[in-house]
Order: sequence, then structure tokens, then C-alpha cells
Amino acid sequence: MAKEMPRSPLAPDHFPDLPVVDGVRFATTAAGVVYSDRTDVMLAVMDPGTAVAGVFTKSSTRSAPVLDCQVKIGGPSDAGAAILVNSGNANAFTGHYGQTSVAELTAAIAATTDVPLNRVFTASTGVIGEPMKHDRIVDKLLELSDNLSTDAIRDAAQAIMTTDTFAKGAGTQVLIDGKPITIAGIAKGSGMIAPDMATMLVYIFTDAKVSQSSLQSVLARLADKTFNCITVDSDTSTSDTLMLCATGASGVDATENDDFADALHGVMLDLAHQVVRDGEGATKFVEIRVTGAANDADAKTHAMTIANSPLVKTAIAGEDPNWGRVVMAIGKSGAVADRDLISIWFGDVLVADKGWVSPDYDEAEAAEHMKDQSLRIRTDFGLGNGETTVWTCDFTHGYIEINADYRS
Amino acid sequence: MAKEMPRSPLAPDHFPDLPVVDGVRFATTAAGVVYSDRTDVMLAVMDPGTAVAGVFTKSSTRSAPVLDCQVKIGGPSDAGAAILVNSGNANAFTGHYGQTSVAELTAAIAATTDVPLNRVFTASTGVIGEPMKHDRIVDKLLELSDNLSTDAIRDAAQAIMTTDTFAKGAGTQVLIDGKPITIAGIAKGSGMIAPDMATMLVYIFTDAKVSQSSLQSVLARLADKTFNCITVDSDTSTSDTLMLCATGASGVDATENDDFADALHGVMLDLAHQVVRDGEGATKFVEIRVTGAANDADAKTHAMTIANSPLVKTAIAGEDPNWGRVVMAIGKSGAVADRDLISIWFGDVLVADKGWVSPDYDEAEAAEHMKDQSLRIRTDFGLGNGETTVWTCDFTHGYIEINADYRS
Repeated sequence: MAKEMPRSPLAPDHFPDLPVVDGVRFATTAAGVVYSDRTDVMLAVMDPGTAVAGVFTKSSTRSAPVLDCQVKIGGPSDAGAAILVNSGNANAFTGHYGQTSVAELTAAIAATTDVPLNRVFTASTGVIGEPMKHDRIVDKLLELSDNLSTDAIRDAAQAIMTTDTFAKGAGTQVLIDGKPITIAGIAKGSGMIAPDMATMLVYIFTDAKVSQSSLQSVLARLADKTFNCITVDSDTSTSDTLMLCATGASGVDATENDDFADALHGVMLDLAHQVVRDGEGATKFVEIRVTGAANDADAKTHAMTIANSPLVKTAIAGEDPNWGRVVMAIGKSGAVADRDLISIWFGDVLVADKGWVSPDYDEAEAAEHMKDQSLRIRTDFGLGNGETTVWTCDFTHGYIEINADYRS
Repeated sequence: MAKEMPRSPLAPDHFPDLPVVDGVRFATTAAGVVYSDRTDVMLAVMDPGTAVAGVFTKSSTRSAPVLDCQVKIGGPSDAGAAILVNSGNANAFTGHYGQTSVAELTAAIAATTDVPLNRVFTASTGVIGEPMKHDRIVDKLLELSDNLSTDAIRDAAQAIMTTDTFAKGAGTQVLIDGKPITIAGIAKGSGMIAPDMATMLVYIFTDAKVSQSSLQSVLARLADKTFNCITVDSDTSTSDTLMLCATGASGVDATENDDFADALHGVMLDLAHQVVRDGEGATKFVEIRVTGAANDADAKTHAMTIANSPLVKTAIAGEDPNWGRVVMAIGKSGAVADRDLISIWFGDVLVADKGWVSPDYDEAEAAEHMKDQSLRIRTDFGLGNGETTVWTCDFTHGYIEINADYRS
């Protein structure tokens, strides 16, 4: 394993005070799957009536637990549900052994928690290609089941960390038709990726009552505006998982409700930003805004190409307002651009104006903005109404140190 | 500018002894376009009867000289031709000023060399977005024209360097129908990219007689197997240029000749490998071979995704046979893969066999291969006959140092 890294300079001061979500209980334990000195398994059990939605990695080499979850998502919501996550081993690229491992683990969870097998979801995050010692988790299931508690979500956030430098959580309470509902979620990920293919996992819970199909569609739609708009280094994991569980315990129906969607969006964006803030080696949090593109898809292509460019990211690490590298990234993106209509801002400083350096550009002003810990780069294409915002971090010696200097 | 970097550990021992190509003369000078203490302009003048072919960057923000060259390529070949290249300023993203700069410079070259304006090609490599002081080059044209010599190709290779740590050249002589022809070429580029958007430029000369259309088609075909198969960091420059000039001075017709194409392929591959060997911060030269893909296009997508993955490249820097990261890269590439048919070799060591770690895998053996300066990673997909080979380098602290630590 990589050596322990110091807490990210972009980390929030402390883990937030998350509201309790009725109908969800958590327990954690140290099963010693790989790590020996910390908790590495979390179990969440939801009451009957819970709807579960999920969005998963599109990787063609995705993990055995992901394949199992994808089959089960969309099942009946009158039963309860259970989610078990372990850190240390990803159970990916483990062939038929991996599938057997998931089958035995989920069967044991169903038997222990009395949740139907088709409502038991798992995720594994850590080393790829090694058989997982799932027996060590099975041995702990009774203990986990006995210790379930409504207020252990922070422990859960800690148990699923791999190379994360801080536990990630976000939550909110909103009124739907005058009645309060609660949303709380946790995430892990030190970017899209981490040493040994640790991955991004996100679990969000609410006591709102939402139909399964509506829950799935709002989750997929908001994932495109939050978790699908962040990147640390362009590498995509084999286990990315985002799940949303609606217990309905509040009795408040939030199906197709805009206030619910807005509140959920806020929680998801907060968690997505925390993942970027824990990007490997990150020292800068960067918002890339694109406007005036031919369409939204082109805007996303341009924005992600800028956000993933090693040259742009190293310039940001060097606090260098090197807008030529933004021009380069736009040029290679493949999306439509007219060189003589492109304008670029660093913070509020207009750097390039319709195809050339702005006549009023003062590099000292732009350089001053680059010293901030949170940066904004905006590009306008002057072509249409396509727009997007994505978030990334800089590319530093810390990234090389984490991923190259220490043998896994 | 970045501080001067030490010569790449992957550099060849010395610049090769290149054969003289009849019909081509070179001159270089220190015009002080940006650099003050070195040659920064090369002029090559070809005799009447020379055919000129070219392949250029597809960037939508490509430089003014590239746009000018693209219009002229394919013109009549009974005239001579001239190529002028400067380093220090890229003349890219410079709007109408950039076009005027090219127009004035090419007109002055035509007047000085007696080559028709539509046969005068230029390239500029260096900083983006700053007006180019082309007058400084115009002032030196008479001197350059007076000093043209058939044996100054090494000086030419040096004059076009920016952050390259060594000058790059390759050449060969082959028999076509029993008669000798000569090929010699030079390249610059510290990868696809370098600080301030310096770029890859390649100029190859031959005394074979080849029709313009045949020259263009063989160049484009071989570019796809050589320069389009290398990557240092996935960033694409605004000025990439590859030109091939056939003077015909040998009197040997090599139009549609396979021996000529083979010899040219060898020179192009040699130059392409030298560019990778001078990749920013590179300490390992890496061949990525893909076989058994559904088709050649899928093979290229998988190979380039592996070659561009920051996680794969940092693992190589760390001499870590981390095959899980290769699996990850395959998974995200978007090309077809069946997890349970994938096999992976590091050097000659079979690491993963049809979807899982090989039963005979000995990590110590793979780790031994990773210590070499030249590495081979092979992936077989078991799907079809698609195959390709691409080349890249590792991703090290040196890259961050060059691109982030020193302000441009």
C-alpha cells in the first residue's frame, strides 16, 4: 500500500453534522479483508418499503459486485434492502471466483438480515485481480447485524475509505408540501481513481417516499450534472457506484417533486466536490465553465478536455495563467470551435478575446487569481447556447508520489 | 522559459551520420526571434522538380503557418520548394496578425530564394498567442540564402529544437531497381507537447523521384503507423507538421514502390521513437502491443488509452507491474472488450490469462522486466484480428517539474 498521505489541503474543516434518515441503520466492523488496523466493512439496512436506485461505471472490465447490483436495481420496493461495502479488495477481474464470492456473501447477508436476496447490494473497493477473502466478512455479519444503529453514518463513511485523506458526507432537510424530509449521503474516492484502483462509491439515503422509477430517473439525471462532471486524472475505475435509497419513513411523497430534486442535487454536488477536493495530490480546486458552445454535448467535451489536460493541470499547479494551454486543449477536443470566436477568462480577468490575447490583459491580475485555492476558468465559444460546468483539481508532484514512488 | 533540462536518459549516444540528399540545401542562423543565445531559424531549399507532401495537426486552433501550408500542399511539383522553420514563437492563436506575419515572411522568402510563393512553406514552434517578430527573420534571409549547403542537416535539426534535450535525425540508403536512393529526416518534439506549446515538427527529404499524389498517400499511410502511434501525455499541439520532399535528383523513380515505402517507414519510425525518447521527464521507453481486438480501430483505441493513462504511466515510472491498471484502462477505452477473454503480458511474462491472474504468474519475474529502460506491454483480446503497436514513455516527477515548477 501507499504510505499514509497527509489530509488534503482542500479538505473541509470537519465531517458535517448529518441528520438521521429514518428507516436506515448502519454498522461497521474491522474484518481484516486486507487492512489490519481499521474498520473496513459497512452494512446499511433499510426498512421495508424502501426504493433503491443506482448508477454504475460503464467500464467493460467492471467488478463482480457492480455486475450483481446492475441486475438487481429496479426490483420491487415493498421489501427492505441491505448494502454492504468493503474496502481493501475490489473483487474486479477475478473471473468466476469473483462471482461466486459475491453470491456467497450476498446469500449470507440475506440470511442474517432477513432482507430478500434480490435486495442485497454489495460493493468492493481496493486491489484489482486478487481473490477476495469474503469469508472474513461473512464471519462478522452477526456482529454487524446486532450493532445496527441509526446514527452511525459517519463510521460508515470512514469504513469505506481507501486512500481518501478525509471521510466525506453531506446532508440536508427540506420541506415538501410543508412537511420535512431528510437526505444524507456519504462518498469515498480520491478522484475517479486511487492507487490499486480504489474507486468512487457514493451512498445517499432519504426518508422521502419516491417511486422506484422516479428515483432512478432523478438519480441518473443529477449524476450527469454532478459526479459525471468531475475528474481528477481521466482514469475511470472498475467499481464506480452511486446508489440512492428512499425509505419513505417520513410519509412524505416526493415523487417527481422539484424541491426534492433540488435538495438532492445540492447533496450530490457537495459530495462530488469533496471527491475532487481529495483528488490525489490536489492543491487547487478548479471550476471549468463553458458557455456559447454549439450544444451542451460539445460544451461537455470541451470542458472535460480542458479539465483532463496534463498541461493545463500542471500550469494550474504552477499558478501560471497559461491560457495557451487552454487553447491547445480546445483545439484537440474534437468538438466544434471557431478559433476567432473563442474568449477565455481566468477568474474575472478576460485573458483572450475572440481569438487573440485581450488588448487589456494584465498578466499580473490573472497570476493573482491563480494563487487562490479555488480557481475559475471560463471559455466562451460564441457559437450557440451550449453550456456546462465541470470540476477538477491540479496535477502535482503529490500525484506522482502517490502513484509511482511507492510500490503497491 | 523552463530551465535547461539534462539530456534524456533515453537519448541515443550521438546524432547519426546522415547521408546527403541531392537537391536539398540547408542553412541556419540565430535571428533572436525569442531565444538570444542559439540558432533559431532553419531554411531548406529544394531544386526544381521536387514533390512535397505534408500531414498536419487536426487541431481546431492550429497555427497560422499550418493553415498556410495546408492550402499549398499538393501544388505543382515542377518548381523548387522552400521550407523555413523558426523556434521560440508558435504564431498560433494570433488572429489576423498571425496570417499577415506568414504572408510577409513567405513573400520575402520567395523573393530571396526565387522559389514561387505557392511553394514556400513555414512552421513556427514555441509560445502561443504572442505576435511573432517575423521581421527579425526577414532581416536574416539574405544571409541564410548565401549560406545554403548540402551537408548542414544536423545544424537544421538543432535550430528547430525548443525544449528538446537532443537533436533528432534518421536516414538510410536503399536500392530501387538496383539503383541507390537516399532518405534523411529530422524531427523536433519533446513528446506531442512541451512547455509553452512547443510542438512536433518533422521534415524528411529524399532524392527519389515520386509523383506528388503518390508521395502524399505514402506519407499519410505511414504517418498513421508511426507518428500517429506515439504519445507522451495525450496533449496535442497546435502546430504539428510532418513534411516529405522528394527532389528526384537520383533519377530513380520510386512512385508506388514498396522498397521505398519500407525504407521511408524505417526512417519515420526511428524519428517517432526519438520523439518519445525525449518525452518530458521520460525514464522508460514503452511499447504497447494489442492483438486479437475486434478490428484495427478498436486495437488503436485500446492501445492509446493504455498509453495515455496517468495510472499506467506512473506505475511504469515506479517499476510496478501493476496490471490491474491496464485492466482499468481497457475498461474505460470505449472499444469492445470481453473481460473473460483478456490476456496481458509484461515483457514475456504472462500476467493475466483470459480474465484473471495467470496461475503461473510470478510477480518477481514481471518486476524484473519493469527495471529495463525499454518495456513491452502486450494485451490480447481474443476477439478478432485487430492489432496495433504504439509507443509511449513513463510519467514522472520530471514531467511535473518541466510543466509546473517553472513559470513560463
